[in-house]
Parts: sequence; structure tokens; C-alpha cells
Amino acid sequence: MTDFKIMPIIMSGGAGSRLWPASRAAYPKQLLPLITDKTMVQETALRVSGEVYTAPVFICNGAHASAISKQMDAVNCPPLAIITEPVGRNTAPAAIVAAQFAARHGANTLALLLPADHHVTKPEAFRAAVASAVPAALSGRLVTFGIAPDGPETGYGYIERGEAVDSAAFAVSAFREKPDAATAAQYIATGRYDWNGGIFLFSPAAFLSEIEKFEPKMLKAATAALDKASRDGARYDLDAGIFADCPAESIDYAVMEKTAKAAVVPCDIGWNDIGSFKALHDATKDERENAVPDGTVLINSGGCIVQSDGPVVSVVGLSNIGVIIKDGAVMVLDLNASQDVKGAVDALKTAGRTELL
Amino acid sequence: MTDFKIMPIIMSGGAGSRLWPASRAAYPKQLLPLITDKTMVQETALRVSGEVYTAPVFICNGAHASAISKQMDAVNCPPLAIITEPVGRNTAPAAIVAAQFAARHGANTLALLLPADHHVTKPEAFRAAVASAVPAALSGRLVTFGIAPDGPETGYGYIERGEAVDSAAFAVSAFREKPDAATAAQYIATGRYDWNGGIFLFSPAAFLSEIEKFEPKMLKAATAALDKASRDGARYDLDAGIFADCPAESIDYAVMEKTAKAAVVPCDIGWNDIGSFKALHDATKDERENAVPDGTVLINSGGCIVQSDGPVVSVVGLSNIGVIIKDGAVMVLDLNASQDVKGAVDALKTAGRTELL
Repeated sequence: MTDFKIMPIIMSGGAGSRLWPASRAAYPKQLLPLITDKTMVQETALRVSGEVYTAPVFICNGAHASAISKQMDAVNCPPLAIITEPVGRNTAPAAIVAAQFAARHGANTLALLLPADHHVTKPEAFRAAVASAVPAALSGRLVTFGIAPDGPETGYGYIERGEAVDSAAFAVSAFREKPDAATAAQYIATGRYDWNGGIFLFSPAAFLSEIEKFEPKMLKAATAALDKASRDGARYDLDAGIFADCPAESIDYAVMEKTAKAAVVPCDIGWNDIGSFKALHDATKDERENAVPDGTVLINSGGCIVQSDGPVVSVVGLSNIGVIIKDGAVMVLDLNASQDVKGAVDALKTAGRTELL
Repeated sequence: MTDFKIMPIIMSGGAGSRLWPASRAAYPKQLLPLITDKTMVQETALRVSGEVYTAPVFICNGAHASAISKQMDAVNCPPLAIITEPVGRNTAPAAIVAAQFAARHGANTLALLLPADHHVTKPEAFRAAVASAVPAALSGRLVTFGIAPDGPETGYGYIERGEAVDSAAFAVSAFREKPDAATAAQYIATGRYDWNGGIFLFSPAAFLSEIEKFEPKMLKAATAALDKASRDGARYDLDAGIFADCPAESIDYAVMEKTAKAAVVPCDIGWNDIGSFKALHDATKDERENAVPDGTVLINSGGCIVQSDGPVVSVVGLSNIGVIIKDGAVMVLDLNASQDVKGAVDALKTAGRTELL
């Protein structure tokens, strides 16, 4: 096998409104210690450290760069670079910037694109999956990781496996949008589907060559924005005017669903996207199905998640709820309505209560 | 009709744990402006002011005397007396103290015993009911007021009407403990039952004469505790050692259920004992069934009561709940489990968190 390095490129673009008020505009969930005593950014970076990996690269909102820098220093894992986006353009332009940055770093550097805000309970299994994906990536495949599904979830996209590429990777037969419940159950029954975790490994040259076919304008703008970035040490601020010209598109839509080079490496890594309070509850609950601080009083109540920046919480006669108290805002929700938290954020925005967001 | 005065004697003995954390040991519900911009003590006293009434007398825990004094001064309704109990002994000993105090005030003074923490939406109807009960009281009847029932509630005691005594009052056929749902429905179906609101009108001599028959020891101890009270202006502190000797008993159990002189005056006064968050919600909800401060965000939620001493509350996907935030404590409850709030208070007591209670 060719000598290679893997550059973890951590995409930290989330605004975190789905976990409001635990997460805020200034402190989205990836900057918070939601699950362990480390922040999700720290956990994500430390998960992919070791001999085969370079120091991490972050692509983030400029407002979060300083916090990321401090958080990584605090765990002795200084970033190779922090690249700031002047404006969010979804994941495809960020992936181009990542690929260009990796390409310029050195020959045989593979780019490992990772969302900053996913939780993984089996980090060794994840690193093993990445290692097993290297041959396919070195051969020019754009590899995505297929998360072994726990059940027929309707909140994730699915990837259908095709023919085997090597002992670890399969060609992608199809990417599927978030299905309805019946369709999800069909997917699971076939045994050929995995969840789309939004994690990618590829050689920069292969990725850039594919994106040139499908999104030449995006490639040009994103590349120019990096070329013209203003640099201060490890920090690169992408050129605002140029980057704003990029179409906003996801990696999946811009490349993965179109390329013939997509491959999927199935893996069972204890993955959770912490995409809602229900998911956060799943990731943090104890054997009694609760995730609550010491001192919380639960009377005829269970399956609860409670987070508080001070007040002691009592819950009476309610199950499967979340109570989140932070910085002058309190959210009480049915965990099965977790996806509607954004509605509360929108209502506060409309009411002009931006100081709470 | 004989010339008479009515002395309102407001019994403020409640600890208010059923409305915790809105109410606290130091500020039970009667000292709070829960329903209007006046406290319940202020509302209760002002409800029975006017020519026929003396200034109010309070019987309360010593810890609340100063707050009551200040609250009454603030509405220009200074009490005739504030009598403090060194220890709670239920309502019968307090009623004896009240009767003795009224007896010493002047001839033809009737005692009107009122809980400090009940809400009445029709104060004129209440005063009219009291006026209509005067003839029976002057004739030696111990009059209780029968609240026109809204429905087959299981949380209240019931009073069965017997023969008419005069145009307003009926002899009491029976006092009934809180019934189960089927029994409550039977009561309502007969049309002969009212709720027991714990409000009484009687001539002190008649009351004391009856209590002497049934509870001579209690009569002696409660009277001596008033005789030996230490006085400071309008404040009387009952003698602690003597009052502690009183058996703890309710008026109903000590006298009303035993005397042949019990009478009931039915009335429809918009009564609510604010005995739970559910009752508080009923008393304060708007036309959309909510009782929440401006700025509260309700997403797919309704029938909610929210009280907050600062934080903005959002509720997502939950109906018929209460969210109460006060002084470092947060209570979230199913309003149909309102009676279990006491369980949370007990749990915090057991955990030694008395600073929260």
C-alpha cells in the first residue's frame, strides 16, 4: 500500500437550533460538552488522532473560530488550520475547500470529512472502518461510511449497497432521502441499507476531478475563495465576496449521488447524530432511561432528559419529556416532538427575542 | 333584627406545599398575588369589608404575621388583630380562639371564619350569602356555606342539605368526606349536595357552647392560650406551652359533624380553593385555556399554566401541563397529577434541600 496520511477535516457549520436552548447561536452543540466532559469538537478531533492522522483542520463559522482554537488547545490538539466560512453554503463548497487544502498539504494525503457534532460510542471501530476504507479511497473511490441501522428510522438518509469493491467497501447502488416509516422498514428488511452518516474519505484529486464534472462553477468559486483567503497563523478566512458566489449544495447532492465512484464502507460504530433532544436523550440516558442531573426530583415520571444551568428541576407525572434550562430560557418538550423545537426558535426570532437565541 | 357586626376572622394556616415552588414555606400561597395583582390575603379581607364588618382578624403562623401586617397596610385595611399560633393545631383550636376573641369584642358580634387562600369570583354574591346567613347565626345556628358544585369533584367534602331553617339556611343532613367518582356523581344527581368550602358564620356564644359539649379540653386549652397571649399592639402571640396542649382537629370533625345546630347556606360565588396547580389554572386561564405570561412560546401545546420569575418559557408538544419557575426551583407537572406536587416537596425535604422549600 502506498504511504499515506489522513487529514481529518471537521465541518463545524451547524447552528444548533434543534438543541436550543442548550445550544445557542454563539455556542452551537458542537462547542458544548453535551455527552462527556469534553465538547463534541474535542471528542470528534481526538477520535481521529494517532500516527496515521495529521492534526485536524476545521471549517467553521468565523464566530466560532476562537472557541474552537481554545477548546483544541485545552486538549493539546492544536489544529493544523481553522478555515472560516463568511457565509454558510452547505457542505459541498466546504468539501471543495477541504479537498484543496488537503491537496496542497502533500502527496497521498486523504481527506476525512467529519461533521463536528456526531457522537460515536465505539471510536476504535470507527478508526478501523476508516483504515479499511483507505484502499478504496487511494484507488480513487469517494468513500462514504454506512452506519449499521438500529431500526427503521425515518430521520436519516439511507445508502443502498451494490457490488463489493474490496473486502471493506461496496459500490453505492443508491442514495435514498429520508423515507417514510413503511419504506424505512422495507429498507431494513433487505439488509442492504445503511444510514448515511455524512462522513467521507477520499483522495483530494479524485474528489476534485468528480466535482469538476458536476459543479464546475462551485469548484471555481470555492477554490478561489481559499486562494484569496486572508491568513493569520493557522486561521484562514475565506474570501467573502467570492465564497458567496458558491451555490449552496450538499456533498451528497452535488457529487455523491451523481458520481460513478461512490463507495460505501458499512460500519457499526455506535453512531448518533445528536440531531434532537430525543437523540441526546438516547445517547446519555442511564439504565433507568433518564438523563438528569443529581438532585432532580422525578415523581411518577421517567424517560426524561433534564439539563439545567442552576435551578433544581422537579417533574411530576410526565414521561418522555425534556426540560432544558439555560441562560434565561427554559424549554419543556415532549421528546417525541423534538423536531418541533425549531418552531420555538423561529417564534422567538419572529418576536425579536434574538438575545435568547 | 338585632343590631350586629360581623367580624371576619381569616385563617391563614396553610403551608402551601401544593403550589410549590410558586409558594414557599416563607411565602405560602395566601401571601402571593396568584390570581389578581393583590395577594390572596388582601383579596380575602377586602371581600368582606364594608359597614356591617369589623376590621379583619388574622390567625396565622408567627412567621407570616409581619408580611400580613404590611400587606394589609398596603391596601389601607389594617387588621383589628393578628393572632399567631405557635404551632399548627388544625382549624378547631383556631376557631375557638376566634370565637373567644369575637365574644370579647362586643355583644352581637358574629364570627365569620374564612380560609385566607380561597378565590371568589362573585364577591357580591358572597356578601349577600353571608347577609342571608345572619338570621340563622343570630338564632344560634352554626352556619357553613355550601358551594354550588360545578361537577362531581372528588377533591372536596360535600354537605347534604336537610330541612329548611329559614329562607336561606337548611339544617345539615350530613357532612360527607371526599367521595370517589361514582359517589360524587350520585351526590350531584340528587341536587341536595354542596361542596364544603370551610367558611363559617356563628355567634361566638353558640359555637363555644357547642364545643364545650364535644371538646371541653380543647376549649379550655385554646381559651387559656388566648388569655395568656403576649400582646404587642394589634399582635397577639398565643401562649406556646398551653396552645401545644390542644388536640389538633378540624372544625368539621370537632363540632360541625356532631352538633344539632349545624346549618348550611347554599351559595354560588365562583369559589375556587386554589388547592392545586390545576385549580390555579382553572382560576386564571384565558379563553384559549392558557395561563401564561406574555412572551411564552407554545408550539403544539395548550391548556398550560406557566409562571416564571424571569426565564422565558417555551413548551413544545405538551398539553395540560404546568411550568413553574421560582427562586432556583423549577416544577414541571401534568396538571392532572397536581396532587402529587407534594411528593416532590417531600423528596426535597428528605434530600435536605430545605433552602428550596
